[in-house]
Amino acid sequence: MTVAPLDACYLKITSNPNPSVPKPNNELVFGKTFTDHMLTVEWDIETGWGIPEIKPYGNLSLDPSCCVFHYAFELFEGMKAYRTKDNKISLFRPDMNMKRMNKSAERICLPSFDEEELIKLIGKLIEQDKHLVPEGEGYSLYIRPTMIGSSNGLGVSIPTKAMIFVILSPVGPYYKTGFKAVKLEATDYATRAWPGGCGDKKLGANYAPCILPQRQAASRGYQQNLWLFGPEKYVTEVGTMNVFFVFEDSKTGKKELVTAPLDGTILEGVTRASVLELARQNLNPSEWEVNERYCSIYEIAERSKKGELIEAFGSGTAAVVSPIKEIGWENEKIDIPLLAGEQSGALTKSVAAWISDIQYGRVQHKNWVRVVAEL
Amino acid sequence: MTVAPLDACYLKITSNPNPSVPKPNNELVFGKTFTDHMLTVEWDIETGWGIPEIKPYGNLSLDPSCCVFHYAFELFEGMKAYRTKDNKISLFRPDMNMKRMNKSAERICLPSFDEEELIKLIGKLIEQDKHLVPEGEGYSLYIRPTMIGSSNGLGVSIPTKAMIFVILSPVGPYYKTGFKAVKLEATDYATRAWPGGCGDKKLGANYAPCILPQRQAASRGYQQNLWLFGPEKYVTEVGTMNVFFVFEDSKTGKKELVTAPLDGTILEGVTRASVLELARQNLNPSEWEVNERYCSIYEIAERSKKGELIEAFGSGTAAVVSPIKEIGWENEKIDIPLLAGEQSGALTKSVAAWISDIQYGRVQHKNWVRVVAEL
Repeated sequence: MTVAPLDACYLKITSNPNPSVPKPNNELVFGKTFTDHMLTVEWDIETGWGIPEIKPYGNLSLDPSCCVFHYAFELFEGMKAYRTKDNKISLFRPDMNMKRMNKSAERICLPSFDEEELIKLIGKLIEQDKHLVPEGEGYSLYIRPTMIGSSNGLGVSIPTKAMIFVILSPVGPYYKTGFKAVKLEATDYATRAWPGGCGDKKLGANYAPCILPQRQAASRGYQQNLWLFGPEKYVTEVGTMNVFFVFEDSKTGKKELVTAPLDGTILEGVTRASVLELARQNLNPSEWEVNERYCSIYEIAERSKKGELIEAFGSGTAAVVSPIKEIGWENEKIDIPLLAGEQSGALTKSVAAWISDIQYGRVQHKNWVRVVAEL
Repeated sequence: MTVAPLDACYLKITSNPNPSVPKPNNELVFGKTFTDHMLTVEWDIETGWGIPEIKPYGNLSLDPSCCVFHYAFELFEGMKAYRTKDNKISLFRPDMNMKRMNKSAERICLPSFDEEELIKLIGKLIEQDKHLVPEGEGYSLYIRPTMIGSSNGLGVSIPTKAMIFVILSPVGPYYKTGFKAVKLEATDYATRAWPGGCGDKKLGANYAPCILPQRQAASRGYQQNLWLFGPEKYVTEVGTMNVFFVFEDSKTGKKELVTAPLDGTILEGVTRASVLELARQNLNPSEWEVNERYCSIYEIAERSKKGELIEAFGSGTAAVVSPIKEIGWENEKIDIPLLAGEQSGALTKSVAAWISDIQYGRVQHKNWVRVVAEL
């Protein structure tokens, strides 16, 4: 028996009879406003992928015994489409998201799909709603591809039905006034991920348990928590982002950009990978080292005391880079310097510019940018 | 501002106009058939718990940005109602499930509720569908209280809306021919739960990642996997059940019933607690020890070689007790004896009888059994 692959050529489009007008940029709240259409494709273990449909944005109707409600058969991606100066709409490294989405699916026995076909379908969806892609630096269209198990029944077993849906949200900069450096509380009473677990996959299961430590950090005046791991108290991630530190050796003057290695406990961030690639390409190796290595909160505290901790930032699709100005750790406060009168350090600012220049088409990058629509 | 507590006195009932007739017992598949009605109650962070409703079983309609689909804001309970010889329908230790449900909710920032009120509401739901509670040893009504986050929007934050729903499934014995001893494969390449995680809570997040190791065990001829933890390779759970081992000291003849301690990585099973309580009450302490302690796969293999491993079983609401006859571990097979011509050891059989005698009302137990309907 053959099962059907995901195939964009069967796409069926039903237009929304009530097209919306774009909201003013200043009314956009992250992930709260959605466009007129959504993409859905259903899968069945016997027949494979069905007809992809673009249709008016609307509710999903599911049996209360559906496995997505009980056993967290769900995963997602976060991507963005950018409107360039010459009115093209382009995706940033969609191949990376699709690859990760298939890896997430494999980990929880949801179906795999042809990555290029889903990129094509997402392109068609964006084409349909292209008038709602906001214009301006820091504005973009957030794209949320999601896959859920949709078979009914309470036995804990492999889903026999699933669904991909994609929704689009016009968004502004994560912080309205550009960068705003955040304060983190280091968390060692809760653990985000573990070897042999699934913390490197973008599963719903990794997110709900993150809220309590975040909330507790917030109650003490911190915007986010910083996840530590193990007796060594290695720094792993910040909230739901990857995290980078910049050190400067006080003797040699040599600088180091550090992030946690992909050991199975770290989300394989697309922004993380992009920061590393751009840093390796743009920074002078006689002045800089770029390292994926373990780094403990003890090292960070110690190097801060020696004046060697010079920057820190989180990286993720939503905020791109998010500068860090302070870490609360036990009863200490680890201060992280910012440029005078600004909300980030020098490298953080450069990294943000390198990436946004590519995203908004001011710097051409053939492999990372894919145009999906023109206005 | 006061928010409304969950209150059963506001219950609104809408009867299903098409009541179903009970299926023959031999057609009941676990968690596949549901009764005519469901219970729903919605919650809002501003106003608290709304009107509880019993209404015809039917689909949930949710926005595709609903947080349950993206961040696994979901938890559940598994309970059973039993039909006794004198045609009463009773719940087994519902207070334990309600307490655990609130602990699960707290862990992922979903709302708490008055436990007695939800038991009352579940009782009313069962009353409504009491003609569908199957009769006979091993048959019961499986009850699935579920709570989901239901607010819309893609920001990872505390749900501002939630919903409890309860559905009912008439079920037969987990294995049609009574007990059937299972073979387990010990898993050390994947980890179910870890300190600082949430493996002790009944969250959806703990279940989807369990399927892959189960599937891999099945591909090698094992019905379930046995979860190990850490470099010590402590035995923690079997599939989605707690696990017990019985040892007999070859020198002293003293027996020991062992299960993993509640250290935050072990689901706080109601059946587990009941097995421990009944064993402590019914077994002669001069012959038996009942211990919650760490026990490694190395100890199990070693004691098997010495002939000291005499029984093993899983415990959970669905199967009650599930005898184990073999564990595959690296290239070894650890054999576990069964009674001649039977599918379990002697203690496993006794434990199953102790519990089912209480569940079916053959032995009275005031604190553990609550009658909710009469036929």
